[in-house]
Amino acid sequence: MVETKVEGLSPFMMHRSLIESPHLVESANGSYLKLTNGKKILDACGGAAVVSIGHCNERVIKALTKQLETVHYVHTLDYSTQPAEALATMIIEPYKEHLAKAYFANSGSEANEAAFKLALQYFHDKGLTTKTQFISRNQSYHGNCLGGLSASGHVSRKRPFTKYVSPNFHFVSPANEYRYKPEYTSVEEYVALLGDELENKILELGPENVAAFIAETVVGASTGGLPAPKGYFKLIRKICDKYNVLLILDEIMCGSGRTGTFFAWEQEGIIPDITTCGKAIASGYSPLSACICTHKVVDGLLEGSCAFNNGHTYQSHPLSCRAGLEVLGIIKEENLLENVTEMGKYLGSMLNKRLRNFKCVGDIRGRGLFWGIEFVQDQTTKKPFDSSLHVGALIQRYIWESNVAVYPGGGTANGVEGDHVLIAPMYIVTKEEIDIIVSTVEQCIKRFEDEQS
Amino acid sequence: MVETKVEGLSPFMMHRSLIESPHLVESANGSYLKLTNGKKILDACGGAAVVSIGHCNERVIKALTKQLETVHYVHTLDYSTQPAEALATMIIEPYKEHLAKAYFANSGSEANEAAFKLALQYFHDKGLTTKTQFISRNQSYHGNCLGGLSASGHVSRKRPFTKYVSPNFHFVSPANEYRYKPEYTSVEEYVALLGDELENKILELGPENVAAFIAETVVGASTGGLPAPKGYFKLIRKICDKYNVLLILDEIMCGSGRTGTFFAWEQEGIIPDITTCGKAIASGYSPLSACICTHKVVDGLLEGSCAFNNGHTYQSHPLSCRAGLEVLGIIKEENLLENVTEMGKYLGSMLNKRLRNFKCVGDIRGRGLFWGIEFVQDQTTKKPFDSSLHVGALIQRYIWESNVAVYPGGGTANGVEGDHVLIAPMYIVTKEEIDIIVSTVEQCIKRFEDEQS
Repeated sequence: MVETKVEGLSPFMMHRSLIESPHLVESANGSYLKLTNGKKILDACGGAAVVSIGHCNERVIKALTKQLETVHYVHTLDYSTQPAEALATMIIEPYKEHLAKAYFANSGSEANEAAFKLALQYFHDKGLTTKTQFISRNQSYHGNCLGGLSASGHVSRKRPFTKYVSPNFHFVSPANEYRYKPEYTSVEEYVALLGDELENKILELGPENVAAFIAETVVGASTGGLPAPKGYFKLIRKICDKYNVLLILDEIMCGSGRTGTFFAWEQEGIIPDITTCGKAIASGYSPLSACICTHKVVDGLLEGSCAFNNGHTYQSHPLSCRAGLEVLGIIKEENLLENVTEMGKYLGSMLNKRLRNFKCVGDIRGRGLFWGIEFVQDQTTKKPFDSSLHVGALIQRYIWESNVAVYPGGGTANGVEGDHVLIAPMYIVTKEEIDIIVSTVEQCIKRFEDEQS
Repeated sequence: MVETKVEGLSPFMMHRSLIESPHLVESANGSYLKLTNGKKILDACGGAAVVSIGHCNERVIKALTKQLETVHYVHTLDYSTQPAEALATMIIEPYKEHLAKAYFANSGSEANEAAFKLALQYFHDKGLTTKTQFISRNQSYHGNCLGGLSASGHVSRKRPFTKYVSPNFHFVSPANEYRYKPEYTSVEEYVALLGDELENKILELGPENVAAFIAETVVGASTGGLPAPKGYFKLIRKICDKYNVLLILDEIMCGSGRTGTFFAWEQEGIIPDITTCGKAIASGYSPLSACICTHKVVDGLLEGSCAFNNGHTYQSHPLSCRAGLEVLGIIKEENLLENVTEMGKYLGSMLNKRLRNFKCVGDIRGRGLFWGIEFVQDQTTKKPFDSSLHVGALIQRYIWESNVAVYPGGGTANGVEGDHVLIAPMYIVTKEEIDIIVSTVEQCIKRFEDEQS
């Protein structure tokens, strides 16, 4: 075997920053990471809410080794493999009354690109070829390839690509009760306003031109664990139906059990036409994402091309699908979604109990094991910190120095200003680990406030 | 472990076609695939020129199992892992005089999207913010996410997404000596014409607006193993330099040793600013692609942002990088590039010897273990077959029925008409296997011609 042991970082690697260096991880197990310098970290975010069942799970390793010994790769132009077929059945069968088919790719970016193209193909095959425009929301993030980036409303993530993004994507307001519900307005009224805005945007573009509306069911990296106000998705679903606009729900970060149900939309009482999944779906063991659609979408394709013209070399990759199959099998057999729900409630209550009184904590929100803490200069005015201070990253660093990993975010308020940290523990997290996570976060916010005063 | 054994295909899987079914592969080893129905196939294309060192290699399996036991996933916002760092060194160090850094993603699509964004970031960071346009070539294929699709000139692959692709991509003629060199024109004159066309396109768009030109060094799936005419890339490099336009070479299919040198451009006497690799780089063991750039590009970023704003969740995935590291280690230690060169020469000579006399064989071209056979109705006029006959797919099916897998292609001539099959055996291929491949292809072309007459 090739020697992998390296001393420090390679000068030949394009890291995220050319001047700051990442830490070298030597090994990982369960909820813990160990760095090459010996430091041990309680991983309370699994990367970007990726690792769901824990690091280096023996059962998954055994399954993947067996898969590699059996068939490691085939091309889907001619072939399929048993783990890919079994995974499609495992995901869709429980929902087969509504959902029809799953398409597997590698990344969330690829899944969202597939979703856009599937929506376009659907309308094309039904003869509605002018439906080529998409509506997304400000402050959103839907991926880093050109389609996903064009659909992303989050300003900082689009820099310096603003002259490159596609003109086919249009934006409405996010559903952010904490930040954008007008004063003296009820949640119902706020939801109605958001509905009106979407309806007006569809009418402005012309319903005959609009293919789909995309949103994250619970917003992840760009806003920090933000569920929609009650009734929002029911109204959105109604408006989309009224104008024959497909509803795409991006559940790359919030789906695959992260909020306590396999699909986050199960808690919204609606069914989207297309759902995208990623991250937790295979717990990061091999790159896997999914684009899932309803019978309506498949029936549309059957009226025309009878094929989805979106071939990827690593579509339905046997190893990635085998990882997804084993991870979802473990989640099911070990009743991990019950743990997500139970521990999620405990995490939410503890965060609210222990952090509410900090002056810099503006909002605590989340669902299941997916919680965001938004930081503000002033709780009453909700004024964000100066973006140059990178408060989210700073507090995340304090927490990391205290041996707990959470996921930082910036541009939380308006795409440029605003800060949060995202807490997304593994589905196997224990009460004791949550206690450590919450008290570490508490101490580090205290450290931040002490240093401010 | 979850049971993976499935009877037939899942009704819940979105296959490429909704009406045609792929074959279920039960196992694979070395150069062979075995279907669930017992059929054994000599794999002479490794999917889409993906599998380079053979199926289910024991050494790779051992390395990947060990990696899974060590660290299966970390997020690059904070961490890196030893296989990722070691892979960057392994690829770049031999070329460090010219090449600076490698960025790792999963798919070729993602690598090309990264290349476009890296070019944009380079010019942005140098203050040349108007350089946001790209030039590509007709009949090209550069990926299936929106950026790659927009850069693809191949008409059939863009259907039904023509109203969705980005307006930032512009097209010039492909460098296709067989199809497009004007009669009574020398190769030198043809290359000069192509250079003039690119230069005129840059001037038409305004050099201050053009970021990069992208081409495959040896064209793969869209045209079938097509090298450029002699001197083409030297001229293109000169023109790009003249107008401060970056040169991106897409080596996802033709690179990573496929043509006998690690980079296909080593045989062109030039160095591109950005190279993308994929497929053979990790032999399909785990999804891996790379976007590689020169010192000039890194120095540009250092003048501005000092960071590449293109984070992917599975960027530098430890398992994918470990696969790449072991595969490239095997290629190096077992001197497989020598075998690629030697067997490639033999394959080329045998194809020319045995297939030239068929009336339907228009052109045989390739380099290393990357060969295309283009089919025509008439050798003199080069008239393609009616596209509705799908001759490339038909001949590929005949070959497949004879237990050899090659990769079919359509739209070879003009993006709609034209047919080819691509032969891309593994780097471990033997003379005996090449004899089987060539005589099977010969028999099947004969079968096709017999049925035509």
